Amino acid sequence: MSDNTPRTNIDQLGEFGLIDRIMKPFSSRHPDTVLGVGDDAAIIQPGDEQLVITSDMLLEGIHFDLAYVPLEHLGYKAVAVNISDIAAMNAIPKQITVNLGLSNRFSVEAVEALYRGIGYACENYKVDLVGGDTTSSASGLVISVTAVGVAPSDLITRRSTVQESDIVCVTGDLGGAYLGLQILEREKQVYLDAPDQQPQLDKYSYVVRRQLRPEARMDLVHELRDVGVVPTAMIDVSDGLASELFHLSKQSNVGFRIFEENIPYDQQTYETAVEFQLSPITCALNGGEDYELLFTISQADYEKIKNQADIHSIGYAQKQELGLQLATKAGQLVDMQAQGWNHFEDKE
Amino acid sequence: MSDNTPRTNIDQLGEFGLIDRIMKPFSSRHPDTVLGVGDDAAIIQPGDEQLVITSDMLLEGIHFDLAYVPLEHLGYKAVAVNISDIAAMNAIPKQITVNLGLSNRFSVEAVEALYRGIGYACENYKVDLVGGDTTSSASGLVISVTAVGVAPSDLITRRSTVQESDIVCVTGDLGGAYLGLQILEREKQVYLDAPDQQPQLDKYSYVVRRQLRPEARMDLVHELRDVGVVPTAMIDVSDGLASELFHLSKQSNVGFRIFEENIPYDQQTYETAVEFQLSPITCALNGGEDYELLFTISQADYEKIKNQADIHSIGYAQKQELGLQLATKAGQLVDMQAQGWNHFEDKE
Repeated sequence: MSDNTPRTNIDQLGEFGLIDRIMKPFSSRHPDTVLGVGDDAAIIQPGDEQLVITSDMLLEGIHFDLAYVPLEHLGYKAVAVNISDIAAMNAIPKQITVNLGLSNRFSVEAVEALYRGIGYACENYKVDLVGGDTTSSASGLVISVTAVGVAPSDLITRRSTVQESDIVCVTGDLGGAYLGLQILEREKQVYLDAPDQQPQLDKYSYVVRRQLRPEARMDLVHELRDVGVVPTAMIDVSDGLASELFHLSKQSNVGFRIFEENIPYDQQTYETAVEFQLSPITCALNGGEDYELLFTISQADYEKIKNQADIHSIGYAQKQELGLQLATKAGQLVDMQAQGWNHFEDKE
Repeated sequence: MSDNTPRTNIDQLGEFGLIDRIMKPFSSRHPDTVLGVGDDAAIIQPGDEQLVITSDMLLEGIHFDLAYVPLEHLGYKAVAVNISDIAAMNAIPKQITVNLGLSNRFSVEAVEALYRGIGYACENYKVDLVGGDTTSSASGLVISVTAVGVAPSDLITRRSTVQESDIVCVTGDLGGAYLGLQILEREKQVYLDAPDQQPQLDKYSYVVRRQLRPEARMDLVHELRDVGVVPTAMIDVSDGLASELFHLSKQSNVGFRIFEENIPYDQQTYETAVEFQLSPITCALNGGEDYELLFTISQADYEKIKNQADIHSIGYAQKQELGLQLATKAGQLVDMQAQGWNHFEDKE
């Protein structure tokens, strides 16, 4: 993958010079961002609301492969996955900090591309970048982001408050990000075997985008406020639907019955799954990285959301003893396994 | 370095099992920690005060070498360096999040040792661990910590508010942590050359401790409140005195005159510097990692702190045009260089 952009070595600028250069395009949006980058710590001052804080890390060779992940998308994704956690609390994101570990093989231009993506995400999600640490890395690229958000305490949605007979809903569609990863891995192999071959990605643009540049579903947070619905519980789908249901189940002491025919997936997800001889439903249940929102609402609230095209009711909460059950299209009830991504088993 | 402790592979527990196990000893101390680990984000609710947030990352092979850094100390240090930034804002730390990247070579017991150190720091600095992300790493150990603190807005100390003729003060003593690192590097080499040789560290216990297990100077924050002094500006000494003076100078548009004879160092720092044929003053100016506090106060406040044994007045702020000057013991005025640690130049 060729690169004709200018290359400035990071040591030509030094750490402070690099920070000056990458921070120039960032300015503060929120009045409660009292002081941003440049001091020992940022100063933020929420009003009467509660504040939520979350932190996520992306490591090269585990969460991304720079052979096919553009740095701009990576910067965007590193922010989006944290905003997704703020959204899952039903809160409004306000500030982020970004810690970066860089090896010498990255040029200043590469770091700028990464921060350009971070900047797009800040713009899109209306958050202020208020600090962080930039350091050298002896090995791969490391990105660690912390996000802070606010919400009135009675709107904040936890994982532990599902009630029996609540309706289970999920936004968007599932399984696409996992299949996008399969495509990217396959095309990387094709490229390694025959470097003059162009990667064939057009046909898979939707699932590839789901993997490379996921969006946090802040639109749902605003939509729910508009229709006056507070979910009884919420979580974002980062490890796969089954894993998230497992978390809600464990923390709320309930079981779930989920209907296979109601689990949403995109047509391209379906076709790509078939091409890889995978079951689309398995991709949705165990694929992960879709960053959709999974939430429960009281039956009384169902009327208010049932006409929203992008919200799918997929089942209901039941007694804990009944466990996590999938009602298949064939009419069977099978126990779900909470797999999720287990990086410790999958990779060195 | 032998290890007779039991070894449990991380994949025996899985990610969720590991998190359950390491989080068991942590409970919340603060009423404003509304919700800690276990949801998409933690919930914190400061009262009428301003909130400060800071983030720092430690990477294996750059910030530490596991050949001689015990994991317990490393966990402690990862928290302490962030608390030090909160202290440098003159604020009280409240919560931290910890992101961890682990490779398979770490056992569960190793991770527990790391978290034991994190736990000691939480206890010592009275902070709540409220979240974070634990993931696999393809290469070395990665620790990224974010800390949140609070203070009334009129007590918060920035870097940009030094006034001409303010007095420059520093706590404790400088240069020790750098010499501790030299000792550890030398003993590692001795060990590699002759593994049956025991490392000789007793004579250097103070400087080695300064490197391995630094303390954030929260005691100064409390002491200043007791005597009713608010520094005009403050920064922690993480990159060396010269580098921190450079930051204050640049952000406050002032110069400094610092008196060599007033720069504090410990007797063991002095002796170790001589042994390494280094100038103790160079170690203090450019060594870094001492995590002392460097601050400026108005002349009117000097009376209130001058009898505190652990606070040293080392110079004063002057016109910006005069720059950063060191008045040597020999009576000369020399320009200071802001070196700091430049990881990008020093290491791959």
